Amino acid sequence: MREPFNPSPEIRATLNDLARVHRILEIEGHGDMSMGHMSYRDPEGRGMWLKRGHLALSEVQAEDFLLVTLDGEVLQGEGFRHLEWPLHAEIFKARPDVNFVGHSHAHYATVFGAGQNELAPVNNHGAWFAEHGVPRFDETSHIITTVDLGIAVARDLGAAEAILLANHGIAFTGGDVRELLLCGIFLEWSSKFQIDLESSGAKFAIPDHAESIEKHGRIYPEPAKENYWKYFNRLLDISEGREPQAI
Amino acid sequence: MREPFNPSPEIRATLNDLARVHRILEIEGHGDMSMGHMSYRDPEGRGMWLKRGHLALSEVQAEDFLLVTLDGEVLQGEGFRHLEWPLHAEIFKARPDVNFVGHSHAHYATVFGAGQNELAPVNNHGAWFAEHGVPRFDETSHIITTVDLGIAVARDLGAAEAILLANHGIAFTGGDVRELLLCGIFLEWSSKFQIDLESSGAKFAIPDHAESIEKHGRIYPEPAKENYWKYFNRLLDISEGREPQAI
Amino acid sequence: MREPFNPSPEIRATLNDLARVHRILEIEGHGDMSMGHMSYRDPEGRGMWLKRGHLALSEVQAEDFLLVTLDGEVLQGEGFRHLEWPLHAEIFKARPDVNFVGHSHAHYATVFGAGQNELAPVNNHGAWFAEHGVPRFDETSHIITTVDLGIAVARDLGAAEAILLANHGIAFTGGDVRELLLCGIFLEWSSKFQIDLESSGAKFAIPDHAESIEKHGRIYPEPAKENYWKYFNRLLDISEGREPQAI
Amino acid sequence: MREPFNPSPEIRATLNDLARVHRILEIEGHGDMSMGHMSYRDPEGRGMWLKRGHLALSEVQAEDFLLVTLDGEVLQGEGFRHLEWPLHAEIFKARPDVNFVGHSHAHYATVFGAGQNELAPVNNHGAWFAEHGVPRFDETSHIITTVDLGIAVARDLGAAEAILLANHGIAFTGGDVRELLLCGIFLEWSSKFQIDLESSGAKFAIPDHAESIEKHGRIYPEPAKENYWKYFNRLLDISEGREPQAI
Repeated sequence: MREPFNPSPEIRATLNDLARVHRILEIEGHGDMSMGHMSYRDPEGRGMWLKRGHLALSEVQAEDFLLVTLDGEVLQGEGFRHLEWPLHAEIFKARPDVNFVGHSHAHYATVFGAGQNELAPVNNHGAWFAEHGVPRFDETSHIITTVDLGIAVARDLGAAEAILLANHGIAFTGGDVRELLLCGIFLEWSSKFQIDLESSGAKFAIPDHAESIEKHGRIYPEPAKENYWKYFNRLLDISEGREPQAI
Repeated sequence: MREPFNPSPEIRATLNDLARVHRILEIEGHGDMSMGHMSYRDPEGRGMWLKRGHLALSEVQAEDFLLVTLDGEVLQGEGFRHLEWPLHAEIFKARPDVNFVGHSHAHYATVFGAGQNELAPVNNHGAWFAEHGVPRFDETSHIITTVDLGIAVARDLGAAEAILLANHGIAFTGGDVRELLLCGIFLEWSSKFQIDLESSGAKFAIPDHAESIEKHGRIYPEPAKENYWKYFNRLLDISEGREPQAI
Repeated sequence: MREPFNPSPEIRATLNDLARVHRILEIEGHGDMSMGHMSYRDPEGRGMWLKRGHLALSEVQAEDFLLVTLDGEVLQGEGFRHLEWPLHAEIFKARPDVNFVGHSHAHYATVFGAGQNELAPVNNHGAWFAEHGVPRFDETSHIITTVDLGIAVARDLGAAEAILLANHGIAFTGGDVRELLLCGIFLEWSSKFQIDLESSGAKFAIPDHAESIEKHGRIYPEPAKENYWKYFNRLLDISEGREPQAI
Repeated sequence: MREPFNPSPEIRATLNDLARVHRILEIEGHGDMSMGHMSYRDPEGRGMWLKRGHLALSEVQAEDFLLVTLDGEVLQGEGFRHLEWPLHAEIFKARPDVNFVGHSHAHYATVFGAGQNELAPVNNHGAWFAEHGVPRFDETSHIITTVDLGIAVARDLGAAEAILLANHGIAFTGGDVRELLLCGIFLEWSSKFQIDLESSGAKFAIPDHAESIEKHGRIYPEPAKENYWKYFNRLLDISEGREPQAI
């Protein structure tokens, strides 16, 4: 039976950040009507906090989440449980290092996913994915509405940061809320980059694998993540007509 | 002889929705100066309500419609009858399930129509057209100003949701006003998606036909249509400086 | 010796329209810093009214013109005479039907001009050029600063509405100010259209020549030119924060 | 030991211009979160004034610079020294004619740099680079954080105006602040131009080398640089809500 939305102050603060992630992702091209949803592993072990349905990414506020068990039962909150809750739940089950899961239909990443090329670290943003690459789930073009499909996606995701869902969209992850945001943005940006590069017809080389992993470490250390997180939050504040936080 | 514009309150409410469809389609890339027009089958059996001429999609209000018989006689309303009224009339004659017809020169859909590839359900939006595909009318590059051309387009449309008018634009349909809007938007979005995919040069597979039809049923049930309809109306309200309706 | 800017009221009204053409063309992608300039054949036979230099298209007002003879002497007005005055002068000399000449570096038309394909009437906007096509001047990549180059461009323009200046920009013409605007806009739009079509890699057919000429007559009669002219003026008014004229 | 930020009035005026360059470059597509930085050779011989870290290009004001020796010691100013200071320092050491260095991840120039084609003077903006071309540094995909890498980039830059840093970004230079701005903007614009041209699949010819050098001289003399500099400053003023300077 559903209880009212009643997170602890700590969880509520994180949900406020996660709501901001939704709104930033809308600015960065992830919006598709009211589709797309991000989630947060409940730190009290009850399951996950999942954006409720019928809202665009641009419309999500801190209170627009449901507490859902990893078996799909809604424990707290009003509103529609997105059909694709198993996508989130099965990634949380399979990946203890992941505390945040995102799903969207970002245009360029979805276009890239509908093709059969490998995403390569051909620019800085692509280096986010240098170690594991970005696998592609192409068993089906369906949305991920069943536990079996959720398990299959989590299996193909493996240890990677993100996965392309062919003919549908993407899923992406983070250990913290900042990583979730950057993972989503960089997947979209690097997809557009590679599409533009491929479209030009120019020959191109893929940087060395070991060098790309080393590059990832160099350009995305802890302070850089914090720095970029703050940047996108200032961007959001400005776009919503607020004075941004001092730098 | 023309009467003043005098729809019943019920019809007027629908024309208000249809005016909003015009303005939303402008936001979504369907505008081409004052070209493009949508129509509504008159529920009292007198013909159709067709947007009047000389207005951009962005400028259409509830009163900017003419009541026109399916033989082209203007019964109500002031202003210019678009030359392409036969396109609407012949689709209404051929398709009793269709209550709304749209015509525009949406950029990407028109580009796609000028080529010779088949539109495929390679993303969610393309799945709207999964069952029938999107036929291409390429007998002529002319606009559809004669009854004969209207008949030919309606014939090639067959049971499909929309048709590409080669070197000219598109026509699209709906059983209700929400379907008309989504059909127009999804045709433009899926055309851009496939153009971007093809431009990249990546190999791609087309999802299985039966699976795509099943997907259509899963992602576009009645509540989803209502949900997306409300989303686009909030988008319009915000873009026109109004407070959107509560979600 | 230069006189102060002192056009007749009739000429001033036309220069006001021509200033608006500059500003509309900026909205439509023709701007390139302070480059690009339009001109009007002086109806009193003294030469031409040419936009003065150092202004962006977006900044041109009715008083920002010089009266220049077709030999390049400035008769009226303050400010810099664009180096490319011979482009205008020689087209006016060669084409008595032309009363307005435009030159810009509109992005897509300039890209198209740098390639070697023929612009084809593959959409409505391209049909503007159906009869004569759009020739390409590729003797040089230089800007048109000499009378000899002006003569060469006018020769290659022939009876056409516009010409591609390879590796540089475009020139376009009109019998009246409305035709100038539409010619410039349609050249940019149809170039983008064909580039997008070609980039997709799709096969495409070019509509029949005679049919395209017939189409031109059907979709661009006198009332349509007036209708589109008014549309773009409303667009400009809105973009500059004014209430547009009633439709 | 760091002193407080304390430039002379003359230097401060130049840093104000350089801050404006950062903000204009954001408008022109050079922004990538808080990455990208421009520098000014200290006219008093102490090293260079380098934008401090953690700021987006859009956020840079006159006081957001550090005085850094060409060996990397911060002499004046608060805040983070960008890791890539050697990129600036080694170019200043190798090129006495250069007083301003810029580095960004402008999208199209970075895409172009990730491919293997040569940038050619196929439009006016590309003619900026007509004499020397734009070399490509592809020894590594790493950012330029070491003196050795800085030396290698400066070596490959040679006498050129700019260099592509493969899989990373670009570096560009100017003798004065206006040249820095134009060099950065024209590199991005000409990269987009050539990518669009190549993507279309059209055959194209590269203008003659000597003619392109002559063209550079004709279209970019001293007064044109000043003219374009003022144009971009008006653009910035308008975009930041100020009345632009009179033309």
